[in-house]
Order: sequence, then C-alpha cells, then structure tokens
Amino acid sequence: MKNDFIKIIDGGLCAVKGVEVGGLKKGKYGLGIIKSENSTVAGLFTSNKVKAAPVLYTKNIIKNGEISGIVANSGNANCFTGEEGVLDCQKMVEIASKQLNIDKNQIAIASTGVIGRKMPMDVISNLIIETSKIIKNSLQASVDVAKAIMTTDTVYKEFSIEVKLLNGEKVRIGAVAKGSGMIAPNMATMLCFITTDVIASKEDLKESLKIATDLSFNMVVVDGDESTNDTILLMANGKSNSQLKDENSVIDSNFQEGLNFVCQNLAKMMAKDGEGATKFLEVEVINAKTLDDAKSVAISVVKSPLVKTAVFGDDPNWGRIVSAAGYSGADFNPDIITIAFESENKISYLVKDGKILGFDGTSNLKLAKEIMDQKNIKIIIDLNIGEFNAISYGCDFSYDYVKINAKYTT
Amino acid sequence: MKNDFIKIIDGGLCAVKGVEVGGLKKGKYGLGIIKSENSTVAGLFTSNKVKAAPVLYTKNIIKNGEISGIVANSGNANCFTGEEGVLDCQKMVEIASKQLNIDKNQIAIASTGVIGRKMPMDVISNLIIETSKIIKNSLQASVDVAKAIMTTDTVYKEFSIEVKLLNGEKVRIGAVAKGSGMIAPNMATMLCFITTDVIASKEDLKESLKIATDLSFNMVVVDGDESTNDTILLMANGKSNSQLKDENSVIDSNFQEGLNFVCQNLAKMMAKDGEGATKFLEVEVINAKTLDDAKSVAISVVKSPLVKTAVFGDDPNWGRIVSAAGYSGADFNPDIITIAFESENKISYLVKDGKILGFDGTSNLKLAKEIMDQKNIKIIIDLNIGEFNAISYGCDFSYDYVKINAKYTT
Repeated sequence: MKNDFIKIIDGGLCAVKGVEVGGLKKGKYGLGIIKSENSTVAGLFTSNKVKAAPVLYTKNIIKNGEISGIVANSGNANCFTGEEGVLDCQKMVEIASKQLNIDKNQIAIASTGVIGRKMPMDVISNLIIETSKIIKNSLQASVDVAKAIMTTDTVYKEFSIEVKLLNGEKVRIGAVAKGSGMIAPNMATMLCFITTDVIASKEDLKESLKIATDLSFNMVVVDGDESTNDTILLMANGKSNSQLKDENSVIDSNFQEGLNFVCQNLAKMMAKDGEGATKFLEVEVINAKTLDDAKSVAISVVKSPLVKTAVFGDDPNWGRIVSAAGYSGADFNPDIITIAFESENKISYLVKDGKILGFDGTSNLKLAKEIMDQKNIKIIIDLNIGEFNAISYGCDFSYDYVKINAKYTT
Repeated sequence: MKNDFIKIIDGGLCAVKGVEVGGLKKGKYGLGIIKSENSTVAGLFTSNKVKAAPVLYTKNIIKNGEISGIVANSGNANCFTGEEGVLDCQKMVEIASKQLNIDKNQIAIASTGVIGRKMPMDVISNLIIETSKIIKNSLQASVDVAKAIMTTDTVYKEFSIEVKLLNGEKVRIGAVAKGSGMIAPNMATMLCFITTDVIASKEDLKESLKIATDLSFNMVVVDGDESTNDTILLMANGKSNSQLKDENSVIDSNFQEGLNFVCQNLAKMMAKDGEGATKFLEVEVINAKTLDDAKSVAISVVKSPLVKTAVFGDDPNWGRIVSAAGYSGADFNPDIITIAFESENKISYLVKDGKILGFDGTSNLKLAKEIMDQKNIKIIIDLNIGEFNAISYGCDFSYDYVKINAKYTT
C-alpha cells in the first residue's frame, strides 16, 4: 500500500459496483466486453499519424462523454484496413448493441493485433455473441477480460483499489490492460480499460486520466515503437454517489493519487512483461532543470538498446547511461552528475558528483555487478542542476525479443 | 561507377598524393596515424551533450583550419575521464609531435572504445611511437589504419575515388571509417578520416563535408544510440593543384558528388557491418512534403526495432513500416501511400496508392517473402504528397546484436 488512503483490493474491473464483464479466447482471437451503464467516459489514444479504424471510431463515439460498454478484440488490429475496417467497427457495435441491449452510440471499441489484415468478422461476431451471454460481476470475469485482450503478453494485467477521498467517502477504481511489445512513450501498443464508481464530468475525468497517464503509460518503453491502436478508456458510473471534485471544485487529490497508482502499477506490469524481458528496469532522474528534461533523460536511458542489452548481460555499463543521457537533448553538466544502481536494499554509486567511483576492480563496481544480477533494477541519475524528477519503466533487451518479433505475422 | 566523372580506385587514404599513414593493433587496443602535411581541415563531431576528451580537444585544434596529422586510437574512448582525459590527449599529441616532427598544434586526435575508463597511456604511448616509425604511402598502410581503428567492426572500411572536375582536372579522395554499433543519425559512434588533394579554404571544405555527411552518415542507423566520440575529419593537402571551387566560385559539383559517393559507400559499409547484422536495409522515401519529412520517415522506419526484427525474420511485415512512418512526425496521408519491397531485380508492391495488395495468399506477398530472403533489401515508401526524397541505411536486429552488446565491457 502506497498511502493509508489507498487500499489494494481484489476484483479488477469488477471491484466497481454496477460493472459486468466477460472475456473469451478462440484460437488466436480474443474478445472482451465491459458493461458499465451510463458512464461518463474519458479516453486517450495513440498519437501515431496512422490510426486504426477502432481508434477513429471510438474517438468519435466518446465525444458526447457517455458510454455504457466497451468491446475489445485481440488478434487483429483492424488497422490500415480502409473503409472496410470502419464498416467492420460498425458491424461489431451493431451486434454488441443487440446482444447487450445498449444503444449503438454508447459502445466504444478497441482492437489489438496484426496490422493490415481484414478483420475475421465471422470469428469476431460469434465471439461478441458468446461473450455477451456470459458477462457478470465477478473476480473471474475481470480476469477473463484481461486474458482475452492479450497478444504477445505472457501474463494478464489487472489492478484494483479502494480510495478514501478527502471527505472520508470511499470510491473504487478497477482496471485491466494489455501490452508487451511496441511499447513507447505516448502510449504505444497498449490497451487499458478502467472502471470507477466516482461521479465526474467528462472534462474532469479527462483531466484526471491525463495526469495519471503522463506519470505511468507515457513513461514506459519496451521497444520504442509506437502503435496505431493505443487506447485508454476510463468509465465512471457514479454508483458510489461520491464526487470526483471536492467542495472547492478541485479534483480530489486522494482520487488522483489512487488513479496514478493504478496506472503506474499497470505500466510496471507492462514493462515487466516486455517482449522477451528477463528484467524490470526503472530509471529515476532527479534534480533536472525542467520536467521535460527529467522525462527526456529517463526515457532516453530506458529506451537505449545499448543500455537494455547491458542490463540483459548483467553489465553495470554506466558509460552507456551517460551517453544516452547525453543524446536525450536535456540540459545538464556531466561533471556534476551522479549515477547509481539500486536493487532491493543495495545501492552502488558508480559516478558521484561527476567523479568516477566505478573503475575496474573497485568495490563499487563489484557491488554494482551484484545488483545487476537481480531481477528488478533501478538506475538513479542525479543531474544536480534543478528540482524536477521523473521515473521511466522498461526492461532488458534479450534474445527472446528478437525471436518473438522476427516471426510475428507468420 | 556512379557517374563517368567518378572512378573507383585503389589505395584508400593513400590514393591521395602526399599522404603517409600507418596502423597497429596490440591486444584490444589499436592505433592509426594519418600524416598529410599542411592540409586544410574540416571536421564534424557528435551532437551528444557528453563529448569525449578527444572530441573537445580536436574541435579546438582544427579551429585555425589547418592540420598535418591525425592520431586515432581504438579500445578506449577517453570519454567521461575528466581532467585526466584531457591531459591524456595532450600527452598523445606530444609524443606524436616528437615522432612525426609535426607541430603540436597541427595534430588532431580521435578515440573509440569503452567509455569511463582511464586511457592505458603506457600501451597507447608505445603504439604511437611504433606506428610513427612505419608510416608510408601504400595500399597496405591504409588498410592497416582502417583495421587499427576497428572495435566491434567485423570488416575494415575504406574507399577511394578519382574525380574529374568540371574543368577536366583530376583530384582524388580517399577514406577509412569505423563504426558498427551505437550508430544513429547525427553521426553516432563512428570515426571517418578522409584525405583529398584538392585545394580548398576551410569554410568551403566544411560546407562540402556537411552536404556529404547529411546524405550519408547522418542517414545510417544501427541501434539509434548516438555516441560521445563521433568524428569526421576531411584533410585537403592541395597537391593536385586543382581548386575545390570552379571559376564561378561555386563548389565543383563533380567533387561534391564524388565526396557524397565516398561517404555514402562508407555509410553503407557501416550499416552492413551493423553489430549482429545479417542483412543490409535501405529505406527510400519519395515524394514527401518536405525534406525533413522524407528524412524523418526514412530514419523512423530503418530504426524501428519491430521493422528490424521482421527483416531478420524474412517477414515482409509492411504494417510495422506503416506504423513506424506514422510515429515519425512526418505529414502524410496513409490512404494514398505506396509501399514496396525491392531486391536485385525483383520488386513487390504491398500497398499501392493506399490499397493493400499484400494480403495473405496473394502473389505480391509471396514475392515479397522471396525478396525478404535476400541479403540486401530496399523498402520503398512513396508518400505521394510532395517532391522530396531521402534514403536511410540500416540493418536487421538479430540475436547476435544482443549477444555482442550484453557483455561489451567485461
């Protein structure tokens, strides 16, 4: 538990009252349905110039600020599929609308999978019909959704909490996500669906989601490839009778921290499940001149193929860290920076205030090598030039990343 | 031969009159010396915020526009080595000055290798002394320099041509280069030394070198990591008695094309020798709205880990190409683009004017798979929205890239 007002609870999406979900897999295709009637909705989408049909479709659908359901499929991204792709979105919604008894304009969709292949509408249609019949509010149902949207993911991803607001009222937030490759800042290939029972306007919900996303999904890098299908949807059904904004018309800070916490936990799960990943890597940049500088350095280091392969090889190669920080574009002075490796309760400083402590044969380098042997590694970079901080999440670059991606479409 | 005014010739650096060179390897360290007395010099260097001591040193030395020699070592980058690193540069120059009988202010240096380790000055000093004794103008001597500056390179890289200027006079250009990892736009980890016998002012030489570099080294990506030590030096000793500028005070266009050709050939050699590379990849972007757009798409596609692993896996995954183009930031409309794969005399269109031709089971996809089986692959992207073109150079991402980089310092 992060704070005493945040309690991790079971249930995923279904930790939230009034939410019914279901998920099914059939061969390489999967389908998840999330029903949360008359929910205020906020969405964030890929910034890729090439946007998949479901992204375009859902961006439009959520404009009025309310939806009652989400239909998400895996196995085919319905991207670069032209007019037919858009028609397929409409067909999916029509079938779901009939099955779930929800107005067509209240259904969002999302897809993940291969790009540039026609949607297998026979399979998908059947999956929508079958899944609609089994939706319920249960622990297992949320797990089923999390599993149904997996592609190259090796573990399903869900998280849920109860938050005590400043006024003492309790609200809940539940979520599932998928993502393990094509993960880059600005959301990359990932889907994340979040439910909550808070009462919120669409504007406030969007603001809150944007803050949480900037601290979590936008700081994850697996391979730096940003996908065409990224979608985050947050549905607030108001069943708690508690307001997102406090009496001063400010977003309740406890809720915000709760949502940040949920998103950060899912972001870490994605990084840990990065394609071929054997290690989880956090890069914490402190005392940067600007927030952008802190983020740039954190992203640049966590994304560097040379840093990532060094982490895979248990090699505390701080030179590559310095180099990646150097080409990030951030303003700093190499002569005063500090670089440390941390894992569990061990920390080793390889550069301190610009002075190298990690030369061959030193105890610092020996300790750093021990740290690099661990599964969870944190690189700390103190730029010592300002007061802005950022953390990025990533993983190592292994033989298996290459293996997984060399033959994905075939 | 590219044009009838460009003739590929033997000799590398020593194809140019008045140039004497030598190279030696000793264990993991190597040293190359290039002597070309009283040459006008132009240099381009890494844009990484963290610059190695020799980069800072040489940037300063070439300010007056004339040098007579270059000393380059491999095995240690002399980067992040503080004041001691700068002193080591001075020591290297002092020894070379005495041995080569060149003024200290006429010697440039360059280093490549591991970052953050003290220079092994005993080894390097001896290498300078020994190499100074064997410099000469010979085919083998140029090869020796090319070999001496190799790190993870698997082949040495040299190229030389004779160019007939517009006025019929002949000049020569010779070059050696190294680079196979940490290769990214804006020069990345690479060293390139070029000799020529043209007569040129330092300003004109710099202008010509910048043009050639933008078309070559700045379009190569191996892993996207930009190094701290990149250095390109062009020395013009004037021995041909021919001028770089024609009678209208314009840089001779034949010379420029010749220099472009030399740099592009070396850039391609670097890409082909990318760490762990099994294939050479060219990405040609045509009909972009702006030159920057053309370059951005070419670089984004050639750099994408997902495209690179697909190329390794012989997979004509054009969806990843579309996606990488999409996040490049360039302006284009996916509905009108064309994507083709080309190798030798075969070409397969997978997307033509926005229409997908490469669905499963089509002959286009079958042909694309045959093309992907080749060693040299070109991806052609027609954005169909303007008139600017660019070509980038890269390679696939293999198991061996990971292997080579997982244990580089140990």
